[in-house]
Order: sequence, then structure tokens, then C-alpha cells
Amino acid sequence: MSVVVQNIPRADRAIIDALGRAGAATVHEAQGRTGCLASYMRPIWRGARIAGSAVTISAPPGDNWMLHVAIEQLQDGDILVLAPTSPCDTGYFGDLLATSAMARGCRGLIIDAGVRDVADLQDMGFPVWSKAISAQGTVKETLGSVNVSIVCAGQAIAAGDVIIADDDGVVVVPQAQAQDVAAKAQTRLDAEEAKRTRLAAGELGLDIYNMRAKLAEKGLKYI
Amino acid sequence: MSVVVQNIPRADRAIIDALGRAGAATVHEAQGRTGCLASYMRPIWRGARIAGSAVTISAPPGDNWMLHVAIEQLQDGDILVLAPTSPCDTGYFGDLLATSAMARGCRGLIIDAGVRDVADLQDMGFPVWSKAISAQGTVKETLGSVNVSIVCAGQAIAAGDVIIADDDGVVVVPQAQAQDVAAKAQTRLDAEEAKRTRLAAGELGLDIYNMRAKLAEKGLKYI
Amino acid sequence: MSVVVQNIPRADRAIIDALGRAGAATVHEAQGRTGCLASYMRPIWRGARIAGSAVTISAPPGDNWMLHVAIEQLQDGDILVLAPTSPCDTGYFGDLLATSAMARGCRGLIIDAGVRDVADLQDMGFPVWSKAISAQGTVKETLGSVNVSIVCAGQAIAAGDVIIADDDGVVVVPQAQAQDVAAKAQTRLDAEEAKRTRLAAGELGLDIYNMRAKLAEKGLKYI
Amino acid sequence: MSVVVQNIPRADRAIIDALGRAGAATVHEAQGRTGCLASYMRPIWRGARIAGSAVTISAPPGDNWMLHVAIEQLQDGDILVLAPTSPCDTGYFGDLLATSAMARGCRGLIIDAGVRDVADLQDMGFPVWSKAISAQGTVKETLGSVNVSIVCAGQAIAAGDVIIADDDGVVVVPQAQAQDVAAKAQTRLDAEEAKRTRLAAGELGLDIYNMRAKLAEKGLKYI
Amino acid sequence: MSVVVQNIPRADRAIIDALGRAGAATVHEAQGRTGCLASYMRPIWRGARIAGSAVTISAPPGDNWMLHVAIEQLQDGDILVLAPTSPCDTGYFGDLLATSAMARGCRGLIIDAGVRDVADLQDMGFPVWSKAISAQGTVKETLGSVNVSIVCAGQAIAAGDVIIADDDGVVVVPQAQAQDVAAKAQTRLDAEEAKRTRLAAGELGLDIYNMRAKLAEKGLKYI
Amino acid sequence: MSVVVQNIPRADRAIIDALGRAGAATVHEAQGRTGCLASYMRPIWRGARIAGSAVTISAPPGDNWMLHVAIEQLQDGDILVLAPTSPCDTGYFGDLLATSAMARGCRGLIIDAGVRDVADLQDMGFPVWSKAISAQGTVKETLGSVNVSIVCAGQAIAAGDVIIADDDGVVVVPQAQAQDVAAKAQTRLDAEEAKRTRLAAGELGLDIYNMRAKLAEKGLKYI
Repeated sequence: MSVVVQNIPRADRAIIDALGRAGAATVHEAQGRTGCLASYMRPIWRGARIAGSAVTISAPPGDNWMLHVAIEQLQDGDILVLAPTSPCDTGYFGDLLATSAMARGCRGLIIDAGVRDVADLQDMGFPVWSKAISAQGTVKETLGSVNVSIVCAGQAIAAGDVIIADDDGVVVVPQAQAQDVAAKAQTRLDAEEAKRTRLAAGELGLDIYNMRAKLAEKGLKYI
Repeated sequence: MSVVVQNIPRADRAIIDALGRAGAATVHEAQGRTGCLASYMRPIWRGARIAGSAVTISAPPGDNWMLHVAIEQLQDGDILVLAPTSPCDTGYFGDLLATSAMARGCRGLIIDAGVRDVADLQDMGFPVWSKAISAQGTVKETLGSVNVSIVCAGQAIAAGDVIIADDDGVVVVPQAQAQDVAAKAQTRLDAEEAKRTRLAAGELGLDIYNMRAKLAEKGLKYI
Repeated sequence: MSVVVQNIPRADRAIIDALGRAGAATVHEAQGRTGCLASYMRPIWRGARIAGSAVTISAPPGDNWMLHVAIEQLQDGDILVLAPTSPCDTGYFGDLLATSAMARGCRGLIIDAGVRDVADLQDMGFPVWSKAISAQGTVKETLGSVNVSIVCAGQAIAAGDVIIADDDGVVVVPQAQAQDVAAKAQTRLDAEEAKRTRLAAGELGLDIYNMRAKLAEKGLKYI
Repeated sequence: MSVVVQNIPRADRAIIDALGRAGAATVHEAQGRTGCLASYMRPIWRGARIAGSAVTISAPPGDNWMLHVAIEQLQDGDILVLAPTSPCDTGYFGDLLATSAMARGCRGLIIDAGVRDVADLQDMGFPVWSKAISAQGTVKETLGSVNVSIVCAGQAIAAGDVIIADDDGVVVVPQAQAQDVAAKAQTRLDAEEAKRTRLAAGELGLDIYNMRAKLAEKGLKYI
Repeated sequence: MSVVVQNIPRADRAIIDALGRAGAATVHEAQGRTGCLASYMRPIWRGARIAGSAVTISAPPGDNWMLHVAIEQLQDGDILVLAPTSPCDTGYFGDLLATSAMARGCRGLIIDAGVRDVADLQDMGFPVWSKAISAQGTVKETLGSVNVSIVCAGQAIAAGDVIIADDDGVVVVPQAQAQDVAAKAQTRLDAEEAKRTRLAAGELGLDIYNMRAKLAEKGLKYI
Repeated sequence: MSVVVQNIPRADRAIIDALGRAGAATVHEAQGRTGCLASYMRPIWRGARIAGSAVTISAPPGDNWMLHVAIEQLQDGDILVLAPTSPCDTGYFGDLLATSAMARGCRGLIIDAGVRDVADLQDMGFPVWSKAISAQGTVKETLGSVNVSIVCAGQAIAAGDVIIADDDGVVVVPQAQAQDVAAKAQTRLDAEEAKRTRLAAGELGLDIYNMRAKLAEKGLKYI
């Protein structure tokens, strides 16, 4: 029942990096307004923007043993993604695990639970998006699994899916759709630039997007 | 049922600015400990302090169409105030809408829902107080209303009411009371200055406020 | 029923300061993974790390009268710890009370309720860990008690217990155990240093902690 | 600042009772999907369905003094509606106050806080919709107001507004709209009856409401 | 992007019914402590125990249009399972939709949002497990999808997966594992019967499960 | 660190039963409005009213091993009281453990976590007050302690303290105060009876409690 899947496929690095440049909000739109993790997943420090391949962890509540197992599976550019099997806010991860993960090229951690040593993690430049910050520690007694499909903060995530995280939150893109979504995200970015210029000049969205007729048809009254 | 009220009265700019200088906590006290929005309304970045006239928006959950409509109604010095018709944390507002709102002189956004592009909004200096930060976007399918009375984060707000927001949260002052509250806030600020000096010198609040007798009368025992 | 206990014992200053240097997460581990306050207790600004003796306050909801009483009981190096008698998020404490507390050598406030004037508190360098930030104020009508045993954010705290607080949260150490816990914390810090070096060099926790055999025995499968 | 408004207008009893027969969900639809209090307002026992005129109470957290004041203002058919000035879950109301309220013809209590003696209240047939059930009591130290406009569980309520409450929750209808809403509610009830028969016979909503063309136009694909 | 998958496979009815008899807690154990939806999913009335094949719905917040579409896809013995695309507690479903669903043999509804007409639903014997009960209604403006994979209350659910729900909550069993899990559940039920008899006679779990040696080995001390 | 305290003192049975008859709300008032557990602790079925001596359990999140250990320590009339060491909602307890506990005279369970088999527990007449109901199970891997002092749902509880629980929630009375509180509770019950009769006859609390003068003095205005 408790397994470690050792060889997982990953998306192309160039695609991953393109998704990272687009950012969570744009990627979420580009794949049809899907893939956004719950809004309680917040960065422990502001200003990081990462993308990478998910190394997934299913862990018991209050037990971080599987993090040690997962770190061995990390490749350069990966992101750890942990979901507890029941709601839990304890601090599964701190500066020692971050040191180990960084030594293997890990770009960050997404955890639907707690994290600690956050001042050290910020000093080290290791970004984390978590449900909680907690000094409360864990045990190492019960097995979980690594690189199995999980649900993390409301989204289904498979090992090797692409994770994009920034100050707006966390979005997952299924590996098979990564290339298509990256292309659509770029299209959106290009389109936004032109709109931004017109809006800054005082033009209204009502006019740029031709909304007035549709609003009237739906019954909006100006009084 | 879905309306846009186009001409709303606003408080005098000098009064609004005086309320802004006093800040949320002082204004809240000055109007008799009323008007404070729920404490889950937090600034997306720290350090902003604004005051302005409310342009109110009642919007369906997950639908930001009315924000485009409301921006046309903005005058210089206004603040957008959005309440969804049922609880929702999606990101109604981002950098493009902020660009448009700033072009019309908008001082900020109060939203009992989510916001995104927060790194950009901070770079632009556009302040937002929200219930959530979320990359999850919205649709533009269902009407709402602009400049109607709403309840936002537990407070009734009418179009043209004065909003004061800073790191302590958000307070609303009904337009008709703005002048009176501004005067009372100034009185409080003046009184606080003297007290601060005495307290810094080591004098106790127990003595400055003459509390000892009342405490004893209520039955407080020192052991 | 409402009492102020005036002479409370305190732990040795050197021990308190040693606990403060170790920090919340390490101290929590050193005393057997106990004493951590609920993770919703967050610092109002990041970067502070304090330790001190608890001057405890049991206060009615929305009533901060006892804070004035407690401040008289402060000695240099103390920390105010307030628990409301029922859940409440109003702003019990602001810059005037902080001015008074600092004049008496207070190192910070732990409050399972709200606080305000947070921009001023940050400017003053006065650290607070709280459940909420709220401009909503309180009254001074109902008695509570000072330096009685309380439960604050899920932990039992007696007057004179040692409080350690940093960006990871808040931990309490019973006064009688402070010396022992401080020693154990130092042992942990020493051990961590060696591990950090090995982990940074790419060695795995699986090997450093000899986990592989135990994982296999529990049934972990690599596939 | 603390006032008791003694003579408040009330809606016609026949209209109130018609709204009560329609129930919360139907009334909410009939007035344009507005007026619904937050879903955390739950009945302390199931099966009650009431309607009546609001006697409103603004009370400090953890202080039920104003309930005694409000009971004197009750007329036969009224409903008590209490909002605390900051979030609070203590038990403001129990069997003694219910005895007093029932003696004056009160039909129930809506309270955005806690209630207790719930077994007794159920035995007495006194219905309550509340945020919490709590044995924790209150004090009688601080004034509030009676029959002023309040915000209760997210809705603005004026004294004399009509309250409708049943197992689905609580809805408020402004007094001035009560007659119109009651008529529209009856129209809805009549229309629902015919639909219920057709749906029970196996006809689909897709056909009864002619949805297929609109769904196709919006882009729905069957695969 | 918005699709209705029309022909979905379903598990064998005998297996489904066997899982239903075992109940949510036993099934959850039988499949290795997985598949349990979040504990906030509560029955709107107590005493129902159902199992069936999931007809899944991904719906926008506050929009129940897709429920009408999904009902056409129901076969006798199915269960509707709805997840909103962002958190929402409005009442998507009431007695009219239940009438329609029952006419097609639907056994119940699992909804990570709100439901209404709960007194009628109980009278009709239609069971629902939901996050909320709310009189607040929805619109029919925006498309979603039917019979796609969703995440509902923390669990990934595919169309045709087996849902088991009772007073303990809701569990999902992937269709491919249904037969195996049903067999394991029966084994557990058989084993429990013998244990229940011994425990009722006063024998201790410590002895029945041979725990004493393992507890001592782990270091438990009796004092 | 993990201990089982085997011989704990208990309060006199007659005093315990007197506290039980008084009920949670009255006992809470009788001991000076203290001792009430958080309002999220709700009975899994309505109508039970119990009192007994606390056998306390400190358990890791998601691990119910110590419940087996604690059951051996039960004496007739005891109540199990479990607090997890970090927040957790999994189902620690079901019908088998209840069978075992009842065989030893246990009167009920207070658990700041989850419980399951609630339909069976109701059939068996075994009352539970819990934070959650959840089919999600636990492991038996990590030690905790039995009959140590714990904090459960916001209250400090020592082994042997008296627990009173009914539909209003749960209250703890320290063993040393049980006799005094029981006497005060009886006094309150006697006084309430007379008041209930007067209130039922239409007399107002304003008059019975002589509140009018104090209200006027505080500044209440009738308009």
C-alpha cells in the first residue's frame, strides 16, 4: 500500500520555465480556469515565483517520514508537493530538510499542512506555500507514499505534473497539457500588454471589450 | 433589479482626508466604536493608508462583470467596495482592472472576496483590502448592481460613504456623519499625544485614567 | 473571583535568554514536542524573536481593562499573555498600551484575540503574536484576573512560565522545566549543525538517520 | 449613543403570515435572490417555521443586558434579532429569557452568537436560529441599543423588517417590500406546483425550461 | 471545455450494494484508509445509508444549471456528486430537482456546497450530504461539465466511481477497486463481530490485539 | 515521556451526580463563568446529559492507540477525555471501543477530534461530544499519555476532574472545587425556579432584577 514510484516522467524544462514566467493567474486562465489550489495556500515569504515538476507525497497527519524518502527522488528543477491524509497543520518541514532538498536542486515546497523555521527558509531563499506556519513538530512512525496521485488543497496532482506558484497562489498543470497551456498563456500575455496600455490611457473596459450592448440586453439599468 | 446609480453624493474632500490621517482605529473610536469591517479583511501589502468615497458593487459569486461597469462611475478620490451576494474567495480583480481604476483616480479597493496579481498591485502602489488572495479567476455572465447599499464584511455601506483603511483594517463612516466624526477623531488624536508622553515616562494608565477606585469598587482583589 | 497576583516567581534570566536564542521550534522539540500554541497565533510583523516571563491576563471578551492592571505588575523582561474568556477578535491593545508596557521593560505581547495600531507597533519595535488584527476597540467595564493560570491558544500557561516566540509561533515552557529544556535545546542545536553540513553536501537523511532498514521493515515498496 | 426606539412600525400580520407560509427559500427568490442571512445561522432544533417583525438588538460581545431591555419592547408576533458588535459565540439566551419572551408573544430568536438551555427551549417550543450553542454565559455591564438598524449574519436589518426562518435558514424582507414580496412568493409557489407534477412524471427540467438551445449556444458539447 | 460525457461505465450493482451495507467507515478501512471526503460533509438528515455510481458535476460558484443537464444522465441507482469550481455555500438543489432526480432512480446527492428545502427533502426521503444548508439560490448562466473527473471535498472522483454515504460521512471507491474493496470490507465485518462479543464481555483491546509488549517496547511507562 | 497514571483520585459520586443534574450551563455559572469547553464540541446525538470523572488522554494526531490503554484505567462512572497534540478531525473512536468502554462502566467520551459509527453509538446509548464526525480512521503507531493534565477544546483538564456534558456543551470542574460548585449550582437552580414563574406570568426581568436605575445611570435613552 505504501509505495515509492521511482521513475516519473517530467515535462520539458523549457515549457516548465515558460509557465513559470507566465505566473499562476495567467496559467490558470490559459487552461480554462482550472487547476488553482485553495486560497489558504500562502507563501511563507513574498516575492518568489517558481515552476517545476511535482514530486508528490502522501503523508499521515503529524508524520514527516516520507519527506526524507521523497528527497531522494528529487531531480534538479523539481518541487515537493505534500498532502496529509487528514487535515493537519503541524510543521512537517524546516531548515534541515530544506538544506537537503536544495542540495538536490529542489525549487520549493507546496504543503497542505504546516512548515517551520520560516525565517531560516527565507534567508536560504527556499520558497514554501503552505496552509500554516507552526513550530509544532512531527514524528517518523508511519509510512505514506511518494509519487502517487494525491489531492492537495483541492486539486488532483499526479507526479510529474507542472506546479506554478507565486504570490497569487499555486496552480497545477497536468503534464500532458503543459505545452498547450504554455502556448495559450503566452497568447494571453501578449494580448494583455495592449490592453494595459489602452486602460492606462483612460479607455474603459466597457468599450475595449464591447460590453455595453450585452449589459443592456441582460437588463442593466442606469439610473 | 440590476441597476447602476450614476450620480452619488460624496463627502467633502478635506473631511475625507482628515479621516484618512486619523486612521481606522481612531475613526472607529470617534464614531462610538462602530463601523469596523470584519478582521479577516487584510491589506495585500502593508503600509498603505487611504480614505475615499465608496463606489459600491454588489456582484454575483465568481463574476466580476460589474467591476468594469463600476470603474466608469469612479471619480478622483473614490474607493471601490465590492461585496459578493454569497461567500466567495475567487480573484475578482487584478493588474488590468487596477490600471483602469488608477487612470480614473481610484485610491484603492475593498473586497469581501479574492484578488490576484498582488505582486503587480504592490509594484503599482494600488492598495487592496480583501478576504483572500487567489489566482482563481471569474466569469462575466451575470449582472449585479453599482452604487446600491451593500453589506461588506459585516458593515452596511452606502454609495458615497467614507472608507478609511490602513494596516489595522477598514472602517466605514456614513456620509452624513463624516464631518462630526472627523472632528471627534482630531480631539482624540490631540488627547492621545499627551497621554503617550506620560505613559512613556512610566506613569501608569491606572493613575492617568483614575481606575483604581473603580476597580476596587467592582471587587478586584490584590493578593 | 477577580484577582491580581502580585508576586510571581520568574525563571533565571540567563535560562530565559538561552531559550530565546534556541527559538520556538527547537524549544518545542526539546521539551518533547509540547507547549506549542495554536498556529493561528501569528506575529504582526516578521523578524522578532523574544523570550520572557509570562504575566498572564484572563479578560472578558471585548474588554481590555485588565491590561492596564497587568502593566503595573510587569518587570523588566516580562511578556504579557492575554486569553479572553470566550473567543473574541477585537483590538485589545495598541500603541498607547505598548508605550506603557515598554516603559516597564516588557518584551512583547501574546494575545489570543486582536491587536491594533500595528504600523505604530512595528515602528516602535514592539512585537505581538495575535489571533487577529482589528481596528475594533474594547470597553473597560468588567473585571478579569492577572497572574492566574490561563489557557491561551490551546496551551495552559501559569504566571512566570517562560514564553518563546518568533516567526514560527509561540511556545510555553513551564518554569520548573526551563533549565532542563534549555540544556536539551542546546544539545539539539549542536547536533543540528553537523547534520546541516552533511545534508548541504548532498548526503541523504535516509542515510544519516539510518532509516532504510526500518522503512523496509514497515513495508515500504520501491517500484 | 445607546438608545431604545420604542415605537416601531410593523408590517401587516396577514402579509407576515403569508411570507411565513412561503418559507425562507421561496421568499429569498421572490425578492430577487436577496436577504438571506449567512448559512452558519442554524436552527437549534428542526421543524420550526416562523415569520414575524424584527425587534433588533445591538449588543456588546459577551453581554446580554440589552435582551432584558428588548423584551419589554416585544409585541405579539415579534421576533428578537441580536447582532453582537464583534464576533462572539457565548450563550446570550436561555430558558428564563425564553419564558419571558414567550409571555409577550415572541415567536423566536435570531442571534449571530450563542444560545443555551437548548433542550429546554426545544421542550418549550421556542425556536432559535444561532451561530453557536454554548453553555458559556454573559455579563450585564455594558449598554447596547434596541430597535436600531443592525447587520446580522451579513444582512442589514431594520426594526420592523419581516423575518422568515425555517430549516433552510433565515431571510429578511424590508418592511416596505413585504406586500410585494408576499405576492411574488405566492406566484412562485403556484408555478412550482405544476412543475413538480411534471418532474415527478419523469419530464426533464431541460425540456420544461427550454434549456437545450441555450446550452448549445453557450457551447456545451455532448460526447 | 464544457462537456457532458454520456456513456459512463458503472460497477456491478451487487458490489455497490455490498459496499453500501458495509458503510462508510468500514469501506474506508477496507481500501487502506483512503477515499474519505472531508468531515464537513454532513447529512441533512440522519439515518440514511446509500451506495451508488457517481454522476459527477463540475459547476461554477452559485450556478446550478449543470444539475439539470446531469439529471438526464442519471440511471437507476446513481448518485449525483457536485463540486463547485471555487468554494461556495449557496443552495444549488431543492425539492424540485430532487423530484426530478428521484423520478430517474437517483439515490442521493453529494455536494461540496449548499442545499435547501431540507424539510421537504427529508419528507421525500431524499438523502443529501452537503457542506452547507442555505436558502440562498443560484443562477443558470454559466456552463460546467458532467461526468468529468472532479475533486469533491478533498477526494478525486471519476464518473462511475462508487459512493458510499451514511451518518459517518462519505467515501469514494474507484470503480476498478470496488470488487476487491467489497470483499475486504466483508472480511472486516466478520472479524469485528467476534471482537465485539469479547469486548462486551469485558476483555480488553490491549489483550485481544496483543498490544502490551509493543507498548512497552515503544517505552510506555505505568506509574 | 509517555506515561499512564494508574491511580487517580475521583470526586464523590453523589457530588458528581448532583453536578450532572444541574447541567452544563448552570454549573458553568456556579463556578464563576469558567470551565466551558469550546462551542464546537457538539453531541453526536441530542438528549444525553452525563457527569463523571475524567480519564484523560493525550494522543498524537490520527493515532488512537492510547484509547485502548485508557480503557483499562476506567472505573464505573468515568468519562474518557481525549485531546490530540495537534488539531485533527479523524475518527478515533467507534462502536468497538464504545462496547469496550461501556463494559467498564464508562459514561461517555469527550474528544477534541473526530468519532465514527455514530448511528451505532446512538443505538447503544453511548454519548459523545466531539469536534467532528468522520469515517476517516487512525493508526496505532505512536505513544501518548493517559491521566496526565491536558488542554481539551480550550480548557485545562486534570485526571479526576468532573466533566458535565449535555446538549449545551461540556464543562469541567476541578475536583477540589466540585463540592463547592455543586452547592452553588443547587442554589442557582432554586433561585431560577421562582424567577421562571414570575417571568412566565409576564413580569419583566427589568423589574425582577431592578435594572432600570442602573441602565439609566449608564446612559440608556428611550426614544
